[in-house]
Order: sequence, then C-alpha cells, then structure tokens
Amino acid sequence: MPQREFKAVILAAGKGTRLKSELPKVLHPLFGKPLLMRVLDTLGGLQAAEACVIIGHGREQVTQALAAYEADYTIQTVVQEPQLGTGHALLQVRQKLADWQNFTGDVLILSGDVPLLTVETLATLLETHQGTQNDLTVLVATMDNPFGYGRVITEGHTVLRVVEQKDASEAEKQVQTINTGVYCLNWAKISPLLEQLSSDNAQGEFYLTDVIALAVQAGYRVGLSHLDDPDEVLGVNARTDLAQCHAVLNERTLNRLMAEGVTVLHPASTFIAPEVRIGADSTVLPGCYLQGDITIGKRCMIGPHTTMSGVVEIADDVKILQSVVRDSRIGAFTNVGPFAQLRDGVEISHHVNIGNFVEVKKTRIDHHTNAAHLAYLGDAELGTDVNIGAGTITANYDPVRDIKERTIIADGAKVGSNSVLVAPVSVGENASVAAGSVITKDVKPWNLAIARGRQVEINGWVKRAKGITEVTS
Amino acid sequence: MPQREFKAVILAAGKGTRLKSELPKVLHPLFGKPLLMRVLDTLGGLQAAEACVIIGHGREQVTQALAAYEADYTIQTVVQEPQLGTGHALLQVRQKLADWQNFTGDVLILSGDVPLLTVETLATLLETHQGTQNDLTVLVATMDNPFGYGRVITEGHTVLRVVEQKDASEAEKQVQTINTGVYCLNWAKISPLLEQLSSDNAQGEFYLTDVIALAVQAGYRVGLSHLDDPDEVLGVNARTDLAQCHAVLNERTLNRLMAEGVTVLHPASTFIAPEVRIGADSTVLPGCYLQGDITIGKRCMIGPHTTMSGVVEIADDVKILQSVVRDSRIGAFTNVGPFAQLRDGVEISHHVNIGNFVEVKKTRIDHHTNAAHLAYLGDAELGTDVNIGAGTITANYDPVRDIKERTIIADGAKVGSNSVLVAPVSVGENASVAAGSVITKDVKPWNLAIARGRQVEINGWVKRAKGITEVTS
Amino acid sequence: MPQREFKAVILAAGKGTRLKSELPKVLHPLFGKPLLMRVLDTLGGLQAAEACVIIGHGREQVTQALAAYEADYTIQTVVQEPQLGTGHALLQVRQKLADWQNFTGDVLILSGDVPLLTVETLATLLETHQGTQNDLTVLVATMDNPFGYGRVITEGHTVLRVVEQKDASEAEKQVQTINTGVYCLNWAKISPLLEQLSSDNAQGEFYLTDVIALAVQAGYRVGLSHLDDPDEVLGVNARTDLAQCHAVLNERTLNRLMAEGVTVLHPASTFIAPEVRIGADSTVLPGCYLQGDITIGKRCMIGPHTTMSGVVEIADDVKILQSVVRDSRIGAFTNVGPFAQLRDGVEISHHVNIGNFVEVKKTRIDHHTNAAHLAYLGDAELGTDVNIGAGTITANYDPVRDIKERTIIADGAKVGSNSVLVAPVSVGENASVAAGSVITKDVKPWNLAIARGRQVEINGWVKRAKGITEVTS
Repeated sequence: MPQREFKAVILAAGKGTRLKSELPKVLHPLFGKPLLMRVLDTLGGLQAAEACVIIGHGREQVTQALAAYEADYTIQTVVQEPQLGTGHALLQVRQKLADWQNFTGDVLILSGDVPLLTVETLATLLETHQGTQNDLTVLVATMDNPFGYGRVITEGHTVLRVVEQKDASEAEKQVQTINTGVYCLNWAKISPLLEQLSSDNAQGEFYLTDVIALAVQAGYRVGLSHLDDPDEVLGVNARTDLAQCHAVLNERTLNRLMAEGVTVLHPASTFIAPEVRIGADSTVLPGCYLQGDITIGKRCMIGPHTTMSGVVEIADDVKILQSVVRDSRIGAFTNVGPFAQLRDGVEISHHVNIGNFVEVKKTRIDHHTNAAHLAYLGDAELGTDVNIGAGTITANYDPVRDIKERTIIADGAKVGSNSVLVAPVSVGENASVAAGSVITKDVKPWNLAIARGRQVEINGWVKRAKGITEVTS
Repeated sequence: MPQREFKAVILAAGKGTRLKSELPKVLHPLFGKPLLMRVLDTLGGLQAAEACVIIGHGREQVTQALAAYEADYTIQTVVQEPQLGTGHALLQVRQKLADWQNFTGDVLILSGDVPLLTVETLATLLETHQGTQNDLTVLVATMDNPFGYGRVITEGHTVLRVVEQKDASEAEKQVQTINTGVYCLNWAKISPLLEQLSSDNAQGEFYLTDVIALAVQAGYRVGLSHLDDPDEVLGVNARTDLAQCHAVLNERTLNRLMAEGVTVLHPASTFIAPEVRIGADSTVLPGCYLQGDITIGKRCMIGPHTTMSGVVEIADDVKILQSVVRDSRIGAFTNVGPFAQLRDGVEISHHVNIGNFVEVKKTRIDHHTNAAHLAYLGDAELGTDVNIGAGTITANYDPVRDIKERTIIADGAKVGSNSVLVAPVSVGENASVAAGSVITKDVKPWNLAIARGRQVEINGWVKRAKGITEVTS
Repeated sequence: MPQREFKAVILAAGKGTRLKSELPKVLHPLFGKPLLMRVLDTLGGLQAAEACVIIGHGREQVTQALAAYEADYTIQTVVQEPQLGTGHALLQVRQKLADWQNFTGDVLILSGDVPLLTVETLATLLETHQGTQNDLTVLVATMDNPFGYGRVITEGHTVLRVVEQKDASEAEKQVQTINTGVYCLNWAKISPLLEQLSSDNAQGEFYLTDVIALAVQAGYRVGLSHLDDPDEVLGVNARTDLAQCHAVLNERTLNRLMAEGVTVLHPASTFIAPEVRIGADSTVLPGCYLQGDITIGKRCMIGPHTTMSGVVEIADDVKILQSVVRDSRIGAFTNVGPFAQLRDGVEISHHVNIGNFVEVKKTRIDHHTNAAHLAYLGDAELGTDVNIGAGTITANYDPVRDIKERTIIADGAKVGSNSVLVAPVSVGENASVAAGSVITKDVKPWNLAIARGRQVEINGWVKRAKGITEVTS
C-alpha cells in the first residue's frame, strides 16, 4: 500500500455515442455492476482516501448511482459541462474543489470506462511513483502491435514525450511501449500545468496527454510504471468492448476458481461473475451463469445450465442441476433440480430434495424434507421429514382480496398429490393430507384430512360417448 | 447496383459425399434456411433479373425446395446429368436454355454451397466488371497461407492465368492472391469458350477455371475484384464446414447487433440467426438460441438459455428468461419464464406475467393478466386483470371425441389453484373459481364457482395406519 | 498390433497438489471417467496382456476404483512409498513383482494423468520399437515453442541424450523435438539400469529420463517414435489442465461426429463425451451436454440445452428438446420436451409424445401415447394410444408406509387433467378418468371413473367478498 496520501480522479463524463444507449456509458453493467462501480471497487481495495468523479453526460443518473454506492472512502463529484476533453475534465477538479487546492499528495487519474485494472497494478503504479519520487508517472503497456496507440518515447527510465500514431516518425512507430491513459501525479506540481493546455487540435479538445510534454518541459521528473497484461486497460466505447471486458473478466474468474480447486468442465460455455466464491472439489458443469453475491461450498455439483443471481449461499455437498436460484440459502447435502426455481428469500436446510418443476418462494424448509415434482411452495414454512406430493400448491395469494398468506406444514406431515393448501392454513405434525384435497381449515396432528369426491364408475360410458353400440372384445 | 443487365448461374448439382447425408448438399440448412436459399436471398438483395440453378444430385428435393421459395426475380433450373464438373455445369445453361442464347449482358457465377457472400461483395464485383469493361472478372482473396488454393497470376490489373497448387512453380507458390471460384462474365463473349473445355485431367472433369486461360488466350480482357474477408467464400463440403459457416454468420450477426446497441453478454455461447432484429439497450444473456423471423424491441432482457423460433414479435421492455417461444407475439413490459413455453400463435398483451412451468398455446391474453406457476393454457382467451392460480389446466382436448375446444376467461376473473376448466367453457367477468374445482359449466359474472369435496378429518388415522397404538407426545 | 509380447506400467502414485483436491489426481474424471481409466481403456484397445499400476497417494481410493474397473487384461498394482520420482516408481515394479523378473518382452511406460494418447499413437510406438529392434524408444513430439520441455538430442535416428531446459546450450535450446515422457523399453535389458539411477538433483528424486543416458552409455539402441499431435500428451497437474483435456477430447469427438454425418450447429457450446454415438443426419443443437453410454439414431434432433447421462438408447427420428434424459430408452419418431425429464429405467416406444414439464421415472410407455404437459409418471406402465391429461400424477409413493407402488394404464385409456392415480391402481382398456379425479380403485375397461365434487355456483359471492354492495355495470 502507498506511503504518501493519495486521492483519485475518475473521468466519467463521456456519452459513449457508439453504445447507442439511453444509459450513460459508465453505468453500463459489467457482470451486473456498473463500470464506474467496478473502478470504485478497485479504489476501495487500494484504500484510497478520497475519489472525485467527474460527471457530465447523464449526470443525474450517475449521481443517483453514486448515492446508492457504499464506499469506505469519500466520493465527491464535479460537473464537467461542456465536455471539452480529458485535460479539461481534470481542470474542473482544480478549479472547482476548494479542498483540493492545498492538497500536497498524489492523484491517480482513472477512467470510469476502463474497468479491468487490478488493485495490484495500481498499487505498483503508486509505489513506483512514490518510490522513485516521480512528479508524474505514466502507466504503460507493451504491445506487439502498437498501431493506433500513443507511443511513449523514453530515454532510460525518463519519459521524453508521448507521440500519437499520426505524428510518429518511422522510428517512433517501432516503439512498442504505449500510453494507457492512466497516470499518477503530484497534484501540487502537475495540476497547475492543466491551465496551459491548448485545444488547438483537430477535435478542439484539451488532452490530458499533453500534460506529459508540459511536465517534461517544466523540468519535472516523469517516469513509467509497466503493466503486464494489456487487457487491464481495455476501455468500453462500444458493445463489442463490453463483450470483450466480460470475456476477460470471466476468464480471470474461471482461472481463479480452477486454481482454488474447482473443476470447470467447459470454460467456453461458463459465465461467472468475479464476486462468486466456490469451495474446492466442487464442479461447475457446462452452461452455468452465476452472477451476484454468491458463495458455494465444497464438493458441490452446479449445472448444467444453472443460473444464480442476487445473494445466494450454498453449503457443502449440494447439487443444483439445471435450475434457477435467486436470493436463497441452501443447506448441505441438498439436491435441487433439474428445472427448479428457488427465489426471494428461500431458506432450505440440509438433506432436502427439491425436484423438477418445483418453485419455492419466500419459504423455509427444514431438513430431510422432499418436494420432488411439480409443486409451488410460496410463503410457507415446512418442518423436517415433510413429504410434499407431486402437484401440491400452496395457494398463498388471494386475488379477490389481493393479499398473500402463509402456510405452515409441521414436522413429519405428508401432503398428497395435487393437493391445494389454501393459506392461511396449517397442517399439524405427522398429519396427512389425502391426494387431491383442497385444504382450507387447519389439520390437527396425526389426523388425515380429506376433501374430495368419492370415486364412482359409470359403466360403458366411453362406448356410449363414442357411439359404439356393440363391441365384441 | 449494377448498370448493365445481369443474370446469375448457381451451381447446385453436387452430392456432397463427405456430408454423408440423405439430403442434397445445397439443402443443408444454415440457421434454418437451406444453403441454396441463402445464396438466392443474396441475389435478391442485388436485384438480379433472373437466376438459373443447375441441379443434379437430389434434384427432386431441390426442385421442391425451389418451388416453395419466394423470389422477386425469375428462377429457372437446368439439369446437369451426369455431373462432369463446373465447366460442364455451365455448359448446360448455354446448351439448354434457348432464351440465354442471345443474352448480351453479364452473368454472375455462384455456388449453391458458398452461402456467406454478401450483397456488397457481389455488387462490387459487378461494378468492377462493368466499370472496367472486363470480359471476365475473377473474384479473388488474399490469403496469408494460400496453400492448396489456385493462385491468380497477374501482370498489373490483368489476369494471366490461374495455377493450381500442384502445378505452381516456387515463385508462383508465393502468390497470395487466390481464386475464389466466383466469376462475372460477359455471356456472349465467354460462354462460347465453354465448348472448348477439356476433361483431360486426373478427375476427368471439365473445370470452369480453365475458361480463364481460354479467355486470356482469346484476347479477352480478364480482371480481378478483391474480396476483403476470405470467410465469405467458405464452401460447405463437410459438416465441419457447415459448423464454420454457422460460426462466421453468427459472429457477423452478433457484431451487427452490438453495433446497433444490443448488449450481448457472452457471444461465445450465443447463437443468433441473421434474420433476427433486436432493439437498442436490449440485453441477450448467455446461452440464447434465436432462429427465425424474430423481432425484439428495446430494453428487453432475453435469456439465459432462451430459445425462439418461427415468427416471433416482442415489444419493448419484455423479459424472456430461460424459456421457449415459437410463433408468438408478446406485448410491452411482459415477463415470461423462467421455464415457460409459448407456442403456435400465442398473442400476449402488455404487462402480462407468465411464470415458471407455464405452457401457453394458441391463446390470447389481455394486459395485466397473470399465470405465474404450473399452468397449461391452450386454445383459450383470457381478458385483462385475470389471475390464473398455480396448477390450473384448460382441458382443451377431448380424447374420447378427439377434438379441441376453447376456454374463455373474461376480464377480472380469478381462477383458483389446481382448477380444471373443461372446454368448451367460459368464466364470466370478475367471477371466481374456487381452488381445486373442475369447471364443466359456464360461470356467470361475479359468481363463485366451486366443485370439490368438503374437507373432513379422520382423527388419529396416521397413527393407526402406522400401527402406532400409543403415542405419548 | 505389436508382434512381441508387451506389458504396460502406468505411473499413478502422484498427489497432484495443485489440484487442491481430496481425490487422488488419477481419479479426477474426464467426461465422467477417471483419468486412469481413460488410460486403461486405451491399453484395452491395444490388446495389452498385462498392466501394472503404480499407486501411492490415495492408494485405497485408487485400489477401489481399479477393483470396479473391468478390463480384458490383467491389472496388478505395486505400491510406491515414499514417492521418490518416476525412476523410483518403475524400480518398484522390478523389485516387487516376482513374475516380471524373467519377462523378456517390451514394457510401455505411461502416466495415469496423461489421458489423451490414442491407441494409434501407442501402436505406432510399439511397432517402431519392435520393427527397428530398439532397446528403448522415446515417444517425441515437435513443438514450435519447446521452451520448458526436455529436448531430445539425436544423431540421425539415434538418440544421444535428453537435455532439460535449464541445462541446454543455446544450440540445444533450438531443438524442437521434445520428450513426452512416454517410453517403450526392452524390460530385460533396460530395467536393470533403474538400479543405477541417482537422486543427486535439486528435487532429490530418481528420474526415469536419466535412464536414457544410461542406456546410451551402456551401448543400447535408443530410438524415437514421432507423435503428430502434441495435445495427446497433455498432462493433468491443475484444474486448468483438466479443462484443456476436456476441450481437446470434446473437439476430437465433435469432429468425429461431424465426419460421420452429424450436424453440430454450434460446437463452441456443445459438450459431448467420446463414448457417444450418433447416427447420420442427426442434428445437435446448441448447449447440449451428453455424457455416458449414449447411442442416438439417425435423423434425430437433440437440443438445444439437452442433457443426457447414464445408459441412453435413442432410436431414429427422435426429438429431444431442452430436456434431461438419464438411463432411458426411447423409440423412433418420439418427441420429448422441451423441459421434460426421463430417468432411471424409462422405456418409451415409438411415436410417443412427452411434452413440457413432464417427468417420467421407471416407467414403460407403449407407442402412440401422449403425456403432453405437466405430469408425473412414476413406476407406471402405459399401453398404446393412451392420453394423459395435463396435471396428471401417478401417486406412486405412500409416505405413511414409505413404499412405492405401481400404476397400470391399459391401451386406449384416457386420463383427464389434474387427476391423481393412487397406486397400486389400474385403469382398464379404453376406460376414461374424468378431470380432477382421485382414482384409488381399479377402473374397468370402457368405464368412466369420476371422483370429484359437483359444480355449484354462489351468486354474487365475489361482490360480497370485495364488499361491493351495489354495482351498476
């Protein structure tokens, strides 16, 4: 972690025209979390003291998103209006934030649309900057094919200038060290240079890159910090960039999980958010899509084609086959699926079996209970050793009164197939509900409740219905 | 678009032995449409006046497929029997089609198993051909590794000859310009040369390629048109080629969608036919397979693992999670799935909720209606503000009489869980059906219909059933 | 097949620390079968006479797995404890197996964590070894980038030595021929050299590689056999290696299937075990995961997102859409899915239709029978021409007595929607069960059985329930 105090500026004012979106660019989600919040998370990992987000396009939406974001450090915003380039953006901080005027520490310059930089890379940048007593440090990468990037021209460890592709000489075009657009700078020394930037260029914008030349000119010490993996500075300007960022982050996550002892059978069809934690000796089968605050235990079997979202907690030795799980907790040795849905605050204990075509919503289920086929359990509480027959419905919703009610099924109770439990209702301990019953009154322990017609048979009805008057067989 | 009149010939007589198929090669589907029809579609985009398809192997099947194909231009067929090579194929057109004998325009030579050529590429070929007043123009590509392809030997812009791999000198093997097998030719001048082709080669076939040398020899002007993306001339000779064509076309489609403002979260597991249209700010989640005449609105969320086929129309702000949709229309702000199926002429209005394990078939559903769990709605009409309880079935099929009947559920009606509506039957406005009822007679508005047994309880039945004579707890 | 008698040794004593697993490395499954058993299968294809598996880490688990493995040849084990390297491993065979002492044939040295070697490669190795009368033959591969591998230094066809990366001279580093660690050796001549191996190296282990130098020194004939595809010697040391082996084997399988006439629409999202057989003109749609002893007929349509496991046999012209099938047999022209599950010994005849949200378990279904929606058929027997209404449940499980019973539904019987058949029970030929009935007694042929309440209507109940005292409309 850095020695000197530092703050961060995040450029987040751009529109992202090529995204063709109603959403501001920095709010586009990467594994469910806006790009800008991915950058702010990384800063949190760095233990930044303060960040200033420069907003512009869609600033109401961005401000709202920031208000909902929880950080351990101070976040303030500065409006850039109109948006006249990155140098102009940073100038707003200098001109508009009184409390930054006397700041003598370092400032990290990041972009809200460059979401893949790691804590390690930025820590190295800060350490390099502070350790070598640079006034300005440029994060650079080495590209086999640097075409199109600004080349960083150096002499030993000292930066001379950055040359854009179109202005580069033949010799300069051979340089493979490129400017990532991420900087660390001594605010007191470098920020005054922002006032000298000119917009005398094709786009008529003030470029932050030009500060490098001004710093060199002013005799300041300008150095480099090297980035190992150029993918870290992928920026999002189009939906294809967003897809690429997802792919890079996905690969990073799958590699982490595999290193931690998880078998990922088919990485090519597996898509897992960086937040997901999975215990050793668990297996992720093909086609899984896990995104959210998800924790999975050891020796679990997840998939194929399982989707999880929200806050999900899964214990050891659980199987979740071809199912959808959202905001639920599942105990050890429980089996779910295929084709099941658990959602919205389900709490399931250990050794439970939730089979195919079963939906469980806002329901608690105690251990050793089964709901193996075709059931809806909503707003219910099930004890241990309960058996829910196929086709059982907890009728939790009263559409006439538009309210939801709870169903209680006590330990050891057995509910027959195609039963309806009309909430509010309870089935007592060890009670039994006969198949096909509609239960509207509480059932006492050990009793059998039955609510259905008696079976009668109409002789030869089918023959008559078909108009068959005489049949020999 | 081209200046001079042009026609097209499509070679479609081959067997495709390596496909090991009962289906003729050119009828193998690429995103659900036969290869040949993909080529015919491209010609339609070029505003061709007429196309001649040369058929041979499996010609009954190909003729039948052509009869079902709707084009804005004339399509005729010529039979090549036996199949003695591409030059022999084209010769059939010259020899058998009387109305082509005096044709003084240009002819585009295409293959029915080369499905990825774009309208733009062929338009450029035609324009180059006509603009430079060539007699014969060869569509060529540049290959980093041209091994195995016929090299096009040129002097300036003039073609000298095409040399096959096995006949090429060391110098010629370095040539990276290769023959794609697609040509544009002045029919009146070039087609007579077909008569001079020889089958004096290893395969004993008449090669169209040899016409190039004949044309040069005869003093005709032979030129080139360059193809940017060699993937456009991928031909299908094996199932692996078919897989590759799918991959290329899929990537093309995903890139188009992303350019139009659609987020594709995981292109690697997403498979979308070129016909599909999706509005900006919609998101396609992993594992989707969309193939057919499909239109999806803005701000939709599709997937994961959603399959669509047939004619599907989806309005804005719709969610279709992990579901199957075929030949259906879905209104705005409607949610479907996970694990739902809509099929065969479903029409759903806005703000409808179709939940898990619900099948809807040939049914109209008006706005603000819910069928949230475990239901079958077939041959039905549902009004607005209807609630369908979990486990509800419209019994549309009478297996004794083998006919299907309709169910009408009027505005505001509420159908209780595990009910059966035995069609033909109607539930009136604001009527209510009690849970577990089998409704065989129409229900009047505002009435409650109930058809079930009364709940009775048998004391201690479970203890007796289990043989427990005395229980202390 | 080889001329001289040969045996094989398989090194399987390693822990695989980087896998972070409770399971011994060689028992990690590759498409459901342990790595070691994949190697043993390959040996079976070679018609080996005998194999000796050297076990160490987790030897109880490995021994147990070997006991369950069925081979046509003798398998014995030797314990290596402690594990002091590959040379030390082989030495155990020499020292501990009395019946190998006088063995005068050849021995193939394989690793239990290198699962992708083909029968063809090993047959070539043996033939090369025996045909050239080598005493020791090294299987080598050519690598574009050989960094990190042991280089095989040769003079003509004779091996001089193997040099490890760290010991290689600049000239040796240019050598692209690398040691795969797979050998064939004349046991009588080469195995005595194992006694001379030294552990005087950084790891303190006895390396089998060092035997090569000893053999050359001793004047034995040491030669090479070339491996075409270096992927065959991928070893599993980490979960990423396991993922790579799955990817290579998957690609190999998909290419085989395509060569055999199967259309694989989207290889990138398709995952099929090498055991799977599929007939020509069948199509595998995106997202399928097929693993097990699976045979699929011609002209089938499988997927999207279909999962199969266990022993599955599918006839011609079958469709299995978005479903899960385990240990089942399915007849011709039968359609399954989407969203169906067949499991545990289902036998379905031809022209059957199993629709969405239907589970079939341990059940036989005769031809032309339908269960199109929302049903559970367990422990049942269905005749031909049966119709199972939506929502039908066979209540096979008696939770009070904890036993399962059977349901018989005879030819031509029609079961109405939302019925429950409480097993043991039978429905006679051509009998009909009314919708919503709970059937507890056998139904006679041609009879209609009905067990439900009569429909009654309560006038204006909804108005009163809602407290609407006066309504004008």
